[in-house]
Amino acid sequence: MRVLGVDPGLTRCGVGVVDVSSTRTVRLVYVGVIETAHDLALERRLLAIATGIAGVIDEFEPEAVGLERMFAQHNLRTVMGTAQASGVALQVAASRGLAVGLHTPSEVKAAVTGYGSADKKQVGAMVARVLGLDAVPRPADAADALAIAICHAWKGPTVGAGSAPLTPAQRAWREAEKSTTARRVNS
Amino acid sequence: MRVLGVDPGLTRCGVGVVDVSSTRTVRLVYVGVIETAHDLALERRLLAIATGIAGVIDEFEPEAVGLERMFAQHNLRTVMGTAQASGVALQVAASRGLAVGLHTPSEVKAAVTGYGSADKKQVGAMVARVLGLDAVPRPADAADALAIAICHAWKGPTVGAGSAPLTPAQRAWREAEKSTTARRVNS
Repeated sequence: MRVLGVDPGLTRCGVGVVDVSSTRTVRLVYVGVIETAHDLALERRLLAIATGIAGVIDEFEPEAVGLERMFAQHNLRTVMGTAQASGVALQVAASRGLAVGLHTPSEVKAAVTGYGSADKKQVGAMVARVLGLDAVPRPADAADALAIAICHAWKGPTVGAGSAPLTPAQRAWREAEKSTTARRVNS
Repeated sequence: MRVLGVDPGLTRCGVGVVDVSSTRTVRLVYVGVIETAHDLALERRLLAIATGIAGVIDEFEPEAVGLERMFAQHNLRTVMGTAQASGVALQVAASRGLAVGLHTPSEVKAAVTGYGSADKKQVGAMVARVLGLDAVPRPADAADALAIAICHAWKGPTVGAGSAPLTPAQRAWREAEKSTTARRVNS
């Protein structure tokens, strides 16, 4: 299954596409960031975001879309622009006949790293690891979009699974923990 | 000038179109409400709003769009959906090459009634009066959309006017006040 992940934002909107196999292996298809200038009119910025997301959908033809679920508790200054960008992302997905799954930041972190309170660095490191990338995608919005796509791809088929086996991320994280500890000792 | 006013909302999105003459007289062109069902997926609701607004723009061809400027201080439960709907409205306007003017609720109230703290009933009554309607458009979202359109139409050319004469609404409001008082006395 091919999944588009979107990390909505007015200044930088992360967009990532991954393929997930039946064995839950994920592969990077595309990652990018739609950037809009602060001095552009708000409606033009949102149109640029819509056009950018529509372009990615039309080029890579994902079958599903994952999007970060927002909470109004976030920074009130930026929350409006982010909410407007997420509204545009949702609408563009629907205009292409795609359903959207919303995932909270902690759900994304838990799915990708095994820890709901993982920090951005840990999420980025795991995204690079599970996709077999040499470096963490930059900027952070790009890595976050991939994390959301991976979360959506992995969570989809296992919803409600009470005693699910470890996800590839959880297994990899446990291994990473071991090697990190080892490195610390050796440094 | 023909102006589209949008009162964004996920459940009910008010849409009103008015013509304003060089003498600032306003005339009703269209008013409606885009309603979306609670049980529809969020992305489908936002697409329905986008389609509805695009349809009104394509049919009535406004030259400008006025939209309520949102504040995150509002009810946090509903603010996200309203923000997402406003993002969609902004993007659809830009996709048709239209600029959008944002107006705070108190700006809209002040422009239409002369009082920034007017209540919904007063705003509705003034909308009906200046448009020469027999009744206040219902639901309230429809009247609000017209109030935003009227605000945008009237404010546009007089931005920065220090000693502007009374707007038609302000004049009408003063008359309305007198007649209201008179009715009270007579009742």
